[in-house]
Amino acid sequence: MIEKLNLTMLTDFYEITMANGYHSSGMADDIAYFDMFFRKIPDGGGYAIFAGLEQVIEYLKNLEFTDEDIEYLRSKKLFNEEFLEYLANFEFKCDVWAVPEGSIVFPHEPLITVRGPVMQAQFVETMILLLINHQSLIATKASRIVRSAAGRPVMEFGTRRSHSTAAAIYGARASYIGGCAGTACTVADRDFGIPALGTMAHSWVQMYDDEYEAFKKYAEIYPTNCTLLVDTYDVLKSGVPTAIKVFKEMKPAKMGIRIDSGDIAYLTKKARKMLDDAGLQECSIVVSNSLDEYIIRDVINEGACIDSFGVGERLVTASSQPVFGGVYKLSALEKDGQMIPKIKVSENIEKITNPGFKSLYRLYDKDDNRMLADVITLDSEVIPEEDGYEIFDPSAVWKRKKVDNFYAKNMRVQIFDKGKCVYDSPSIDEIKAYCQKELNSIWDEMKRFENPQTYYVDLSYDLWKLKNDMLTAAKK
Amino acid sequence: MIEKLNLTMLTDFYEITMANGYHSSGMADDIAYFDMFFRKIPDGGGYAIFAGLEQVIEYLKNLEFTDEDIEYLRSKKLFNEEFLEYLANFEFKCDVWAVPEGSIVFPHEPLITVRGPVMQAQFVETMILLLINHQSLIATKASRIVRSAAGRPVMEFGTRRSHSTAAAIYGARASYIGGCAGTACTVADRDFGIPALGTMAHSWVQMYDDEYEAFKKYAEIYPTNCTLLVDTYDVLKSGVPTAIKVFKEMKPAKMGIRIDSGDIAYLTKKARKMLDDAGLQECSIVVSNSLDEYIIRDVINEGACIDSFGVGERLVTASSQPVFGGVYKLSALEKDGQMIPKIKVSENIEKITNPGFKSLYRLYDKDDNRMLADVITLDSEVIPEEDGYEIFDPSAVWKRKKVDNFYAKNMRVQIFDKGKCVYDSPSIDEIKAYCQKELNSIWDEMKRFENPQTYYVDLSYDLWKLKNDMLTAAKK
Repeated sequence: MIEKLNLTMLTDFYEITMANGYHSSGMADDIAYFDMFFRKIPDGGGYAIFAGLEQVIEYLKNLEFTDEDIEYLRSKKLFNEEFLEYLANFEFKCDVWAVPEGSIVFPHEPLITVRGPVMQAQFVETMILLLINHQSLIATKASRIVRSAAGRPVMEFGTRRSHSTAAAIYGARASYIGGCAGTACTVADRDFGIPALGTMAHSWVQMYDDEYEAFKKYAEIYPTNCTLLVDTYDVLKSGVPTAIKVFKEMKPAKMGIRIDSGDIAYLTKKARKMLDDAGLQECSIVVSNSLDEYIIRDVINEGACIDSFGVGERLVTASSQPVFGGVYKLSALEKDGQMIPKIKVSENIEKITNPGFKSLYRLYDKDDNRMLADVITLDSEVIPEEDGYEIFDPSAVWKRKKVDNFYAKNMRVQIFDKGKCVYDSPSIDEIKAYCQKELNSIWDEMKRFENPQTYYVDLSYDLWKLKNDMLTAAKK
Repeated sequence: MIEKLNLTMLTDFYEITMANGYHSSGMADDIAYFDMFFRKIPDGGGYAIFAGLEQVIEYLKNLEFTDEDIEYLRSKKLFNEEFLEYLANFEFKCDVWAVPEGSIVFPHEPLITVRGPVMQAQFVETMILLLINHQSLIATKASRIVRSAAGRPVMEFGTRRSHSTAAAIYGARASYIGGCAGTACTVADRDFGIPALGTMAHSWVQMYDDEYEAFKKYAEIYPTNCTLLVDTYDVLKSGVPTAIKVFKEMKPAKMGIRIDSGDIAYLTKKARKMLDDAGLQECSIVVSNSLDEYIIRDVINEGACIDSFGVGERLVTASSQPVFGGVYKLSALEKDGQMIPKIKVSENIEKITNPGFKSLYRLYDKDDNRMLADVITLDSEVIPEEDGYEIFDPSAVWKRKKVDNFYAKNMRVQIFDKGKCVYDSPSIDEIKAYCQKELNSIWDEMKRFENPQTYYVDLSYDLWKLKNDMLTAAKK
């Protein structure tokens, strides 16, 4: 079955009321700049992973309004006919810049900037946020879980607990970018080439008169890779001994057992010993059952004997903190060729925005390629690499540090040029590899689950001054 | 843009390995019974709401394997050709029973039962769980939030923080079933008729030289319903006074202000007074900003002056507990016309299943139509209404209670008969009304957010005895 979702109309209703408003006010073609950024790393982590850009690009490439969409909007009796005409002939004309998928990112960084006619640049807000928030959330969570597994493969097993169909598919994608080795989700294999695997449910075991018959039948049918679920009746008294018997009789090329309940530290240690005593050192042990980074870390510390993990609901819903709070804010206008920076002053200080058209630079140590600091600048600025560069904390300006012996990388690339896509999305394996490379360049201190070191994300002096001047003026 | 999702392949890979296994073992047409149920109410609540059935029905009606699906499966080199042939000619042949959407439901109740050839009844597991888990989660959360608002309308505003596209659309649907008055999600209005609304973002205000101009322009364009966002600069010093000025000049038919930051108890009390002092008693106050049932309850207790709520991320992700743990377990087989009940014995006691083909009865008080208790029975049983009925707690069998003066309702209806859909899905407004009616029939004590009264869900004596005998036998 194919599910068809109308993404053009998957938008907050206010995007349409505002677009119609701009059209009615003769502002339709005013040029606006919007930044997509987020304010806090989920789970108090030290870094986040940016994901979902490929789906944003697909959306922007294919954005159009059908006759039925127009009819529906007309039926609301709120919008003027010329506006509806405009939508019927919609042609995306914006410029878009973004950091590549798989990038390590931090709060307040302009991850995406859209520049174009305000009607258009505003309209795409909802879908950009929806797609980036979801996949960045899951990729970031996956990275934590994969890290906790300390080199053991983690499979994403959460399809059945995902928040709907698309969440399962793109959750599998984001998990893979964040470091998972594969998924249980078949369509993610089919469509993205993410290795899918899975063997049996408890029902397979229950379908037969006893565990022995169930295991033996499975080993007959799948002699190359045979992982048996051993906790339907009793792991140590029945499941593992029966699996050993079947492995010895059937000699599958690859063999494993999966445990999905009970105390996995205790059970895996006992099971490992039983398998080893039976000469089945090569039999692997897979565990599942409501795992997350904390449980995995703990059971490994307790000496659990586990070769790989299946992680479901807590990964695919990012259950410890299921919201990635990305926002999309106006940062500038162009009027008569003149750039007018815009700022949002808020009752909540952390909701104040960075004005202007900006760039994002990452400073790397020349010797070991470690990330030293990120600097958000005005777009016109260049970071001088030669004579050192002084960074300072924008919320504590007396904290200053001179950075030497570095190179600066402009983190963003252009994705659309006046509506035309000028970017080739990398393959998912390239994105995954890029993410891993970026992760290798940050300090371990930033990877702690609790109270990690905070990475420097500073404003250039010019941007800081512009922001400060605008705030001072606004408060007058 | 239309997004197309391949739901046939949106399945855990093990469903396919098992299906192929049953086919290879000559068990393809063995008749199996599977129950969908859940084990715990999210957030420690007193009840859950069942939702997502319409999407399950659509899926089962349209389940087919395309040539590309078959090609993909063949490429895995795991499945036999006759099995692939079977899939290519797939025809759904199962019987399905379910409680209607909008039902109030409790742990361990068989919410859906699928009976049919084991290959088919097993295969549909992933999608049934995915769809029901998601929408039941969100409908249940919505019901809590709507209850906290004590009669004030709650709008679902969470599209941008949803876990992907489908989560936004079906999250809006489930929120509406759970009691929300509307949504920000345009396509949910277009496709389901859920009222969508929304007016302006901060960017609208920032696009103009000042707040007055921005508000005035909006009131010109939307004179019938004009809600102004008053927190872009300063709520009490600028936003509210400017809104008052514009309302007095422009006299929109309906007027409101929205506050999206700051302390909403303090700000709404002050704003209400300013509006009232200006003679704008009819101007409503809408608030948003990371609300949930606890914050809403508290600000209402603090005397906040709020007419309606926009609730986003914490509703649409059910952030306090984003997993609805529905499972799908084998409960019986038919062999040679003989019913063979099946049980899953687990290391975790709460994971032990109820065996056999079952029915679910709800006992209502004849006088006031209040729900008294639910009883899970074997399908063959009838609840005698005349002479009273003794219920007992299956986990504490000495706790017994005789129920009198009641009527018993069979909660489940047949949805598919040998693969043919025999059920007309109600309209979304009918589902919403049914949910409200059910809610009216439970005690307030069950609606508390913390430590609510636990509703009785008992097993009939015959079912309890069957289960007990099977457990005793299994442990020998």
